[in-house]
Amino acid sequence: MKPDQPVTEDVDSLPLSLAVTVQRVRYGEPGMQAVTDQVAQEVPVALVYNGISHAVMMASPADLEDFARGFSLSEGVVSQVQQIYDIRIMQQHQPAGLVLEIQIAAECFDRLKRQKRQLAGRTGCGLCGIASLDALPQSCAQVSAGPSIPLAAIQAALGQMPALQLQNAVTGALHAAAYANLDGKISVLREDVGRHNALDKLTGALAQQWRHAQRPDGFLLLSSRASYELVQKAAVANIRLMVCLSAPTALALQMAQEAGICLIGFARQSGLVIYTHPETVLLPDA
Amino acid sequence: MKPDQPVTEDVDSLPLSLAVTVQRVRYGEPGMQAVTDQVAQEVPVALVYNGISHAVMMASPADLEDFARGFSLSEGVVSQVQQIYDIRIMQQHQPAGLVLEIQIAAECFDRLKRQKRQLAGRTGCGLCGIASLDALPQSCAQVSAGPSIPLAAIQAALGQMPALQLQNAVTGALHAAAYANLDGKISVLREDVGRHNALDKLTGALAQQWRHAQRPDGFLLLSSRASYELVQKAAVANIRLMVCLSAPTALALQMAQEAGICLIGFARQSGLVIYTHPETVLLPDA
Repeated sequence: MKPDQPVTEDVDSLPLSLAVTVQRVRYGEPGMQAVTDQVAQEVPVALVYNGISHAVMMASPADLEDFARGFSLSEGVVSQVQQIYDIRIMQQHQPAGLVLEIQIAAECFDRLKRQKRQLAGRTGCGLCGIASLDALPQSCAQVSAGPSIPLAAIQAALGQMPALQLQNAVTGALHAAAYANLDGKISVLREDVGRHNALDKLTGALAQQWRHAQRPDGFLLLSSRASYELVQKAAVANIRLMVCLSAPTALALQMAQEAGICLIGFARQSGLVIYTHPETVLLPDA
Repeated sequence: MKPDQPVTEDVDSLPLSLAVTVQRVRYGEPGMQAVTDQVAQEVPVALVYNGISHAVMMASPADLEDFARGFSLSEGVVSQVQQIYDIRIMQQHQPAGLVLEIQIAAECFDRLKRQKRQLAGRTGCGLCGIASLDALPQSCAQVSAGPSIPLAAIQAALGQMPALQLQNAVTGALHAAAYANLDGKISVLREDVGRHNALDKLTGALAQQWRHAQRPDGFLLLSSRASYELVQKAAVANIRLMVCLSAPTALALQMAQEAGICLIGFARQSGLVIYTHPETVLLPDA
């Protein structure tokens, strides 16, 4: 083997957290206390389509098949999950990172090659990777309409979320994206150090789970703020209501308005704020 | 003017927030209440060096000269702020966004052009924009050593931070990066919807402020979690202690360890956690 050839091996996933010795300091108490803490792993994950490197994302090293599917869908590399033929997860040691070797349909790969010549490598956390304003996406997918969604279902789903954020409970460093059915039950939840990755993992898992049937109607929960790229990913995944625990940006609202998405923010114990398409939410009778 | 020529005009900054009508819902109370809310602006900002488009970042549209300087330094486009000759902020309407026209020294521009041929456009929020693991940065700058920093100074600086986060007080959507002197007084604070942008704005402001003199020793405060790219930016700015309000990732710790940076996380009312180089912190006598 040539010395400049990276060594890779198949791997399912890496540990999501690492035990480290840290020094705990409490104000008013003397000295430091050495304790063991769990810290979230964050690894470079390269996405390689049909042998050609496409992008590198920093991500939590779990649910990487979901990530490969969700990223490929939300970036428009494929338009349906059936166009992904195979996903192989490889570990590379020098330089260290994970490599997702993704086999996609020939027509998708041809389109990707044409795009790569036009754009300078747009990647999943939004605009970064594009070189000029002319490469900005100018429109957004439209979501399908549906019956209004009861406020009680949103409240119920929010209540289930913390107990399902298993990795965040260990490290305190992970965002979560969850999908709940109209009765308010969370069916899938994914976690990642990056909020956009968490959402890609969720939409990838949903696409795979419902590859042979219509996905049941439902809504999205995000542990984070809402920036424009999360709305964009929700629109591509045809999700018509998204609930964020924290604030949205003005551009996120504008995108949600145009895409037909009901965007809810500041979801707290006492209530929430509806920013766009409030007709989507069914309030209880007075 | 040709129809495909974007219209641009000089602009100092755009409003940081936008008033929108939202629907407030309180659990247990009937109906929605229409109220006016302030939402953070998030705009595409293109960085153009000597007429050549380099990258587009989503950012809060304020302190953009600081951003231009900090981004250029942390990305290694320039190695000192004196190599930036001029910064002009332009507003473009179609496609909409801000354009930072940055004039840099010829030797920096030549290096940038050579890099662009090698990399696929690395951008400021870390790895995104690079196409393969081989383009990963393999080493990190080393920070200068200095006297140990009193815990009381860290505690004092943390206490000042919320009152200085003026834009976050309005919208709840902005991260902050602050620089405090060794006596615990915050000298500069910058805000942005992106935590990496907030840090670039801060280091850009510091570089400009101390362009003719040595920057006073001090430390960094971040309202966010600590991921690897924030440690990398701190290392380039030669900041030897960084305090984050929330969790770091394992890769952030590894980078901080190698760079000689004392990384503190989970800075709360009751205390904090020191992850690397605890010798940097001077504890009070028992």
